[in-house]
Amino acid sequence: MNRDQLIKTIRDKGSFLCVGLDPDPEKLPPGHSGPEGILKFNKAIIDAVRPYAAAFKPNTAFYEAMGAAGWEILGETLEYIGPEHFTIADAKRGDIGNTSRMYARTFFETYQFDAVTVAPYMGSDSVGPFLSFPEKWAVVLALTSNAGADDFQLCENSHGVPLYARVITEAAAWGSPENLMFVAGATRPEMFGALRERAPEHFFLVPGVGAQGGSLAQVCRYGLNEDVGLLVNSSRGILYASREKDFAEAAAAEAARIAEEMKSILRRKSLL
Amino acid sequence: MNRDQLIKTIRDKGSFLCVGLDPDPEKLPPGHSGPEGILKFNKAIIDAVRPYAAAFKPNTAFYEAMGAAGWEILGETLEYIGPEHFTIADAKRGDIGNTSRMYARTFFETYQFDAVTVAPYMGSDSVGPFLSFPEKWAVVLALTSNAGADDFQLCENSHGVPLYARVITEAAAWGSPENLMFVAGATRPEMFGALRERAPEHFFLVPGVGAQGGSLAQVCRYGLNEDVGLLVNSSRGILYASREKDFAEAAAAEAARIAEEMKSILRRKSLL
Repeated sequence: MNRDQLIKTIRDKGSFLCVGLDPDPEKLPPGHSGPEGILKFNKAIIDAVRPYAAAFKPNTAFYEAMGAAGWEILGETLEYIGPEHFTIADAKRGDIGNTSRMYARTFFETYQFDAVTVAPYMGSDSVGPFLSFPEKWAVVLALTSNAGADDFQLCENSHGVPLYARVITEAAAWGSPENLMFVAGATRPEMFGALRERAPEHFFLVPGVGAQGGSLAQVCRYGLNEDVGLLVNSSRGILYASREKDFAEAAAAEAARIAEEMKSILRRKSLL
Repeated sequence: MNRDQLIKTIRDKGSFLCVGLDPDPEKLPPGHSGPEGILKFNKAIIDAVRPYAAAFKPNTAFYEAMGAAGWEILGETLEYIGPEHFTIADAKRGDIGNTSRMYARTFFETYQFDAVTVAPYMGSDSVGPFLSFPEKWAVVLALTSNAGADDFQLCENSHGVPLYARVITEAAAWGSPENLMFVAGATRPEMFGALRERAPEHFFLVPGVGAQGGSLAQVCRYGLNEDVGLLVNSSRGILYASREKDFAEAAAAEAARIAEEMKSILRRKSLL
């Protein structure tokens, strides 16, 4: 899916919600164990939230923990999502050039995701291979939503520029707003202004709203641009809104609630 | 495998060679296509280099590019290696805590590797979950062997300390030399002295000898400690020493040549 199609998807739905498909075996409702149970869970969630979501983002960790069977259901989940939603493999890959190329093939050819998240630590040649597939995207980690982000991402160089800001400035030059996004965590909305200044046109994928405590209003205040420019993710807050039989209805209600808030923000900003 | 067992394995063999099992479909000898062909290739390589190697390191990229079938043969490859060699999943994973825990389960429980490589960008809570499995190891990227390492790893803070050095100092405090190693690329041996000073007891996993041009002698000069403290990896230099029918003999010869050089260095340093 290219940038225009992504923007159209968001505008048509009035929602820039990305639903994280991270099925944790310890949190699933009764009757959903094993790979087949998890696939059933994913399908129920996808059906429930489809109208409210612009994107889906399975995190590969939850699939590969099941071994080969997990990769089977990752593929089946992707197929079930279909072409109407933007799809992101949250894989946080990155390696030397010839190896990153294999990862890019994995997520763009073996599995036909629109985007894959990529870790920047190894630099340009580790990200480059993800940028050479038409209508495919690399989503580079800049400022993540976890406490450990402080350890290195906030470290400043001698000019007072933190690492996450250098990642944005450097990586922006490796691709374009047509094939590169950044991960920017919702738990640090006070830094969104600076992020947006450094990458005015790029989409930001924003984790951390919901279970991790980030505020949608704050993220939008600093993060929206004239093409919306945000995909805000919720995983646990939606998937486990209920852990009983009514999990799908509860997920739909939570996704609808977030999408409604998004729609009203987009209207207020004259972006719809 | 714990630290004492790893050191004993290295001393018994007189070799700290790690063989990277990175089967690139474009480079395999005739008759080795598809997952079954790649498994056959891996087994032939393992048999050929077994006497000369202390460790094996499959890079997950080359397996997951085949989808579920690739994960099947990754498991079969690991099983074929057996318990006599140290095994490293070169996966470069790292995510927020609850997700990293799933990755740790993948490589330490679903697949029983001894170690997994981990990217440090997301900080302590992304690495911590890999450190809570007895006799298992996290191998944290510090200074990698690729050109892109310059982009962020060499960036200095206001005290002139480069990022890779801060990663070593900080991450060393998250675990111990019993459960944590660092990746330190052979292409930058002039920095090994500083690396060793910051982590005198830790093992370093050293890629970049062979196809990437690093020098074993230089790495040993600065990197050896009294427990050897090095695992030096070669992938392409061994796997593709010949791309014809004699690939296994050529791989054995190349592994034997490196192991011989290692033995003579260890003897010279009175480490054997």
